[in-house]
Amino acid sequence: MEITTYFEEYEIGDTRETFGRTITETDFVVHAGHTGDFFPHHMDREFMAKSEFGQRIAHGTMVFAIGVGLSATVINPAAFSYGYDRLRFVRPVFIGDTIHTKLTIARKQDDPKRPGSGRVFEKVEVINQNDDVVLACEHIYIVERREENA
Amino acid sequence: MEITTYFEEYEIGDTRETFGRTITETDFVVHAGHTGDFFPHHMDREFMAKSEFGQRIAHGTMVFAIGVGLSATVINPAAFSYGYDRLRFVRPVFIGDTIHTKLTIARKQDDPKRPGSGRVFEKVEVINQNDDVVLACEHIYIVERREENA
Amino acid sequence: MEITTYFEEYEIGDTRETFGRTITETDFVVHAGHTGDFFPHHMDREFMAKSEFGQRIAHGTMVFAIGVGLSATVINPAAFSYGYDRLRFVRPVFIGDTIHTKLTIARKQDDPKRPGSGRVFEKVEVINQNDDVVLACEHIYIVERREENA
Amino acid sequence: MEITTYFEEYEIGDTRETFGRTITETDFVVHAGHTGDFFPHHMDREFMAKSEFGQRIAHGTMVFAIGVGLSATVINPAAFSYGYDRLRFVRPVFIGDTIHTKLTIARKQDDPKRPGSGRVFEKVEVINQNDDVVLACEHIYIVERREENA
Amino acid sequence: MEITTYFEEYEIGDTRETFGRTITETDFVVHAGHTGDFFPHHMDREFMAKSEFGQRIAHGTMVFAIGVGLSATVINPAAFSYGYDRLRFVRPVFIGDTIHTKLTIARKQDDPKRPGSGRVFEKVEVINQNDDVVLACEHIYIVERREENA
Amino acid sequence: MEITTYFEEYEIGDTRETFGRTITETDFVVHAGHTGDFFPHHMDREFMAKSEFGQRIAHGTMVFAIGVGLSATVINPAAFSYGYDRLRFVRPVFIGDTIHTKLTIARKQDDPKRPGSGRVFEKVEVINQNDDVVLACEHIYIVERREENA
Repeated sequence: MEITTYFEEYEIGDTRETFGRTITETDFVVHAGHTGDFFPHHMDREFMAKSEFGQRIAHGTMVFAIGVGLSATVINPAAFSYGYDRLRFVRPVFIGDTIHTKLTIARKQDDPKRPGSGRVFEKVEVINQNDDVVLACEHIYIVERREENA
Repeated sequence: MEITTYFEEYEIGDTRETFGRTITETDFVVHAGHTGDFFPHHMDREFMAKSEFGQRIAHGTMVFAIGVGLSATVINPAAFSYGYDRLRFVRPVFIGDTIHTKLTIARKQDDPKRPGSGRVFEKVEVINQNDDVVLACEHIYIVERREENA
Repeated sequence: MEITTYFEEYEIGDTRETFGRTITETDFVVHAGHTGDFFPHHMDREFMAKSEFGQRIAHGTMVFAIGVGLSATVINPAAFSYGYDRLRFVRPVFIGDTIHTKLTIARKQDDPKRPGSGRVFEKVEVINQNDDVVLACEHIYIVERREENA
Repeated sequence: MEITTYFEEYEIGDTRETFGRTITETDFVVHAGHTGDFFPHHMDREFMAKSEFGQRIAHGTMVFAIGVGLSATVINPAAFSYGYDRLRFVRPVFIGDTIHTKLTIARKQDDPKRPGSGRVFEKVEVINQNDDVVLACEHIYIVERREENA
Repeated sequence: MEITTYFEEYEIGDTRETFGRTITETDFVVHAGHTGDFFPHHMDREFMAKSEFGQRIAHGTMVFAIGVGLSATVINPAAFSYGYDRLRFVRPVFIGDTIHTKLTIARKQDDPKRPGSGRVFEKVEVINQNDDVVLACEHIYIVERREENA
Repeated sequence: MEITTYFEEYEIGDTRETFGRTITETDFVVHAGHTGDFFPHHMDREFMAKSEFGQRIAHGTMVFAIGVGLSATVINPAAFSYGYDRLRFVRPVFIGDTIHTKLTIARKQDDPKRPGSGRVFEKVEVINQNDDVVLACEHIYIVERREENA
């Protein structure tokens, strides 16, 4: 679905939550194969049985990519992704955990280089089946102002 | 390979470069299927032919995950990944581009919560075949001090 | 997204169109590997160069599965999928074609076994970049009546 | 293997059964990624634990594509696939179920548009490890007559 | 399909050829991801443009696995695979090449440890679209004698 | 990493061991889809429950491809792979087994056709979590002599 939302229309505190998705052993194997990271932390059950975690843990890049991917449902043609700040791996994700993503409009500011646009900072929290945040970051969008498109 | 490197042994300015990898149409399709993000920017050749880019562009999360994955060759058992700062999508990546990653030890600081460890900030630059940086970020590691392990 | 729509609320003639998706050589290879159908019609460029098509053609089951998948954006908790009628492979799909799906509420009828529900028949047309229908079928849903949920 | 079989040679009641195949969690994840349908019915263990099924259920399009794929062992150069009728999802398929496909020549008729060919209707039944039919449909082939090739 | 063939029934010189299959860039990416071998010989177009081959070359293990896989059409319940001898990578396989496999019963001998069985040596040749052998090896089966099953 | 090692520098008896990797059901499904070998030995849980193994067993070509892939960490630009001898499937590999690979320089000899190079024979042993060898073979490299590069 495509919905145009201008800078002025983002409301601080607005929140949305995605569907959930169970992270499977398949996802671990696919992510290793996709990125080339076959570190035993993600791939070796015996090695991890002796670790503090007791089992394999998900790649941080996978939790990030899937957590963000869950939110890809509506295209805003007036916005593009500038980057992410303060990406933190708060808790491990294990095979069989079910995650969803909660997104909250955190703050807005002028864009120093683009007077016709502003910056929207969206707080991204990936949350597991125990309601624990496993990954957090801030997504920065550059969004056109409505007045510029009037 | 596993090589133990303590906090004291990281030298500011040390740099390493990974092998290269051509980003294929397959990677686009695999990443969409892995994350669930099938936005037409990545998947619809006709739609993108009319865009400013003229062609499909890679998911930012894919350039990040593969760019970081290329560096996963040596395990340091004295370190773990804390997170990433200032992740920026500097230029688009197209089907057929060849990327590699350059990693530079940028700075070090005490860890406020862990006296036995310090923080190492590694600058990560994903670079294409034209020597242009396409993605940049800063990777933060928590690394044990050698003195603590003496 | 989840939106409850009862039997009474489906309007004959209502239509929606999905995003587009370019069918890649990767999709051919993935579908063969997923289903086990490695017939040369889909997998052997040399064999098909001598055929009437001049090139590999997509599996019918893939055009169906992806065409239907493109429409999976909104969940209606009051409905479930009963089956499909008159599934026809109207034109071949080639590597590089871009398809999208058009869905039209075609007709409604009482459900002979479920008085609290009715049947909604949705016409499904998968359409390529030349606006040609490549696959058509009719999707049958069993949908609860609003009166039953009042 | 390639075996030419003309319209006259199909015998009503002839039957064949395929090898079996266990439907794995991997197949669920691959099918979601291949089609873009990440609905929680197939992907969210927690969500489905509370449903009438108690667990994730397979995509209908996957049971169809794999069920048909299991039968792709012999090419008949005198036939091509016209479509499917009365595709019904009779029972859910769960992770770990083992399915195979039973194919029965059900009926034959003249092709209204192609005097040199006829239509063969093959009943397709996908059956699980408890001998329950989980999916049924009728596959329609257009098959050349032998007399036309004499 | 399952066909029982006893040791006595293998005829020296008997030959069969498989369907063909075009080796795609997707296969390169899938094999790297499946095995973890991301060497630039297979993955880096720029690196290989400067090599004697001028382009990426297939993993030897992939040509072997797919070449052997093409022959997996008939199960002989009286035989099992013992191993392979003299596996040689005769010529490179490039993206877009189409391969098929030719299998020839080369020789038979008594099995030194299993009097009720014998060894069948099948010559395996993977051949490209120019009729050049790209990979050769000898597959060794242990096959039960008919007399033992009389 | 790239490290040049000449023929003279290979020492008989030198050994290295790779990281471990758990072989998952996903790997079984990926390998079947990659090679087209869907034999019930690898794919049908019900069929194998009645076999001597009691469960699905890995494709021999997969244990070989992954076992070799685990060793792909250092490129020697002075060497290329000539082939493999005496590839034997010593024990079955089951879903959930964890394998690693041990490589030992076994012997060296002149290359009959290339006076500037020699042949290095590396013993390859794929070993499971019980320290049992599951697959063994000998890898033959053609390696340049240092004197030729002086």
